[in-house]
Amino acid sequence: MIYELYYWPSIQGRGEFVRLALEEAGAAYVDVARESGTGALMRVLDNSKIACPPFAPPFLKAGKLVIGQTANILLFLGDRHGLAPSGEAGRLWAHQLQLTVADFLQEIHDTHHPIASGLYYEDQRDEARRRAADFLAARAPKYLDYFEGILRRNKKGSAYLLGARRSYPDLSLFQIVAGLRYAFPRAMAGLEKRHPRIAALHDKVAARPRIAAYLASDRRIAFNEQGIFRHYPELDTGG
Amino acid sequence: MIYELYYWPSIQGRGEFVRLALEEAGAAYVDVARESGTGALMRVLDNSKIACPPFAPPFLKAGKLVIGQTANILLFLGDRHGLAPSGEAGRLWAHQLQLTVADFLQEIHDTHHPIASGLYYEDQRDEARRRAADFLAARAPKYLDYFEGILRRNKKGSAYLLGARRSYPDLSLFQIVAGLRYAFPRAMAGLEKRHPRIAALHDKVAARPRIAAYLASDRRIAFNEQGIFRHYPELDTGG
Repeated sequence: MIYELYYWPSIQGRGEFVRLALEEAGAAYVDVARESGTGALMRVLDNSKIACPPFAPPFLKAGKLVIGQTANILLFLGDRHGLAPSGEAGRLWAHQLQLTVADFLQEIHDTHHPIASGLYYEDQRDEARRRAADFLAARAPKYLDYFEGILRRNKKGSAYLLGARRSYPDLSLFQIVAGLRYAFPRAMAGLEKRHPRIAALHDKVAARPRIAAYLASDRRIAFNEQGIFRHYPELDTGG
Repeated sequence: MIYELYYWPSIQGRGEFVRLALEEAGAAYVDVARESGTGALMRVLDNSKIACPPFAPPFLKAGKLVIGQTANILLFLGDRHGLAPSGEAGRLWAHQLQLTVADFLQEIHDTHHPIASGLYYEDQRDEARRRAADFLAARAPKYLDYFEGILRRNKKGSAYLLGARRSYPDLSLFQIVAGLRYAFPRAMAGLEKRHPRIAALHDKVAARPRIAAYLASDRRIAFNEQGIFRHYPELDTGG
C-alpha cells in the first residue's frame, strides 16, 4: 500500500512531523499536493461526502482510512511501523509525549500569530513581540526542561526519549529543535547550552540514515516565513 | 481499581473532560486534589523519580499507570469503558475528533490569555479584545460548522458524533457548548441558532442519567473566572 499524505506543498508545518515518520519508517508515500498541487488537497477538504472528514491538513490516506490530526496520524504510524512501543503503557507514554510536543508547537506558532491566524504577521507584530518574549523567557524553558528531564531519566541510557529505541516523539523533538534554531537562533543558542541532551537527540536523529537522506533530498522543504517556525529577528530576544 | 484523577481543585478546566468520562462510565475515582488539597498534586508533579511524568495536570493514575494529556487519558478510558468504538478506524476517528476539540479549547483559552498564560487577564485585556473578536467572528464558527457537519452526516442518525452510541468526544463537545454559553452568552445565542445539532447534542448528553446526576452534584465545580471558560462581558461581542 502506498500512503497518501495531504499537506500544504510549500511549508514544513505540521505535515513535517508526519513526513519524518514516513521517512524513518521507509514507508512508500505520495506527498499529494507537492506532486499534484493544492487542488487535490482542497477537493478532499471540500468533499462533503467523506465519512470522517479532517478539520485541517495534514491528513493521511491509508487504504480506506482517512486519518486527521498530526498526533493521531503518528499514533497510527507508530503501531504500523514499529515507531513506538507495542505495549499499552509504552504506546500511551509515546502519545503523551507527542501531545506535549503538539502543545509546544502551538505556542511556537502563536509567537508570530498571537491574535489571529487569519491575519498577517505585520498586523499583530506588537503583540507578537510581547508573546515571543514571554515564550522565550518562560514557556520554551519549561518545555525544554521537561524533555531534558525525560532524557535524563531514561533508564536505558539510549539518548532517546523512550527506552532503547527511537520512536516517533524523538523525530518530532528533532523537528522542534531544528525549527527553534531557525526561528530563534540567538535565544536557542543559549537554551541549548542548558539542554545538552535535547541537542544531542537532535543530532542523533539527524544522523539516522533514512533521516539524513531525507534531509539532504529535495523532499525536505526549506524553513520559510510561511511556516510555523519563522525567523523574525525582532522576536529573537534573549539568549 | 479506583482511579485517581489529579487536577486543580477549584476549576473545571481540562480536568472536566476527564471527569465527564469517568462519570459517564460509572467508574470509581478519587478527585485527589479536591479531597486532599493541591499538595498531593504538586508532590507528583515535583517527583523527579516518576518514570512517565506529566507535563501538567490533568493526569490519571490507573494502577501502575500514570497517564497525562487530556486526550490521551480519554483514549485510555475510551478503550477501558466502552466510551469509543473498539475497531481501529472508529478509535482513530474518535481520537481525531477529540484532538480537534482540544484545539478548539486552546483557542477558547487564548481569547482571555493571548499573550502569556502566566500574566493576569488584566495585563492583556486589549489584546484579548482583539483575539476574542476574531475568535467569535472566524474561529468559533469554523469549529462549530465542522462539528455540525459531522452530526449532519452521521448515518445512524443518532444525534451523537460517532455511529449509534455516545462516545467520549460527545461528552467533550457537550462541555464546549456549556462553556461557550457561560463565557460568551450573547455571541453563543446567535451561534447556536446556526448549529442546532450541536445544541441538541448538548441537551442529549446533559440528560444522560449519570451525567445529569453529576451535573446536579457538588462534584461539578461551577464555571468561574479562573478556568478556561471565563465570562468577561467586554469580550462577548457579536451574536
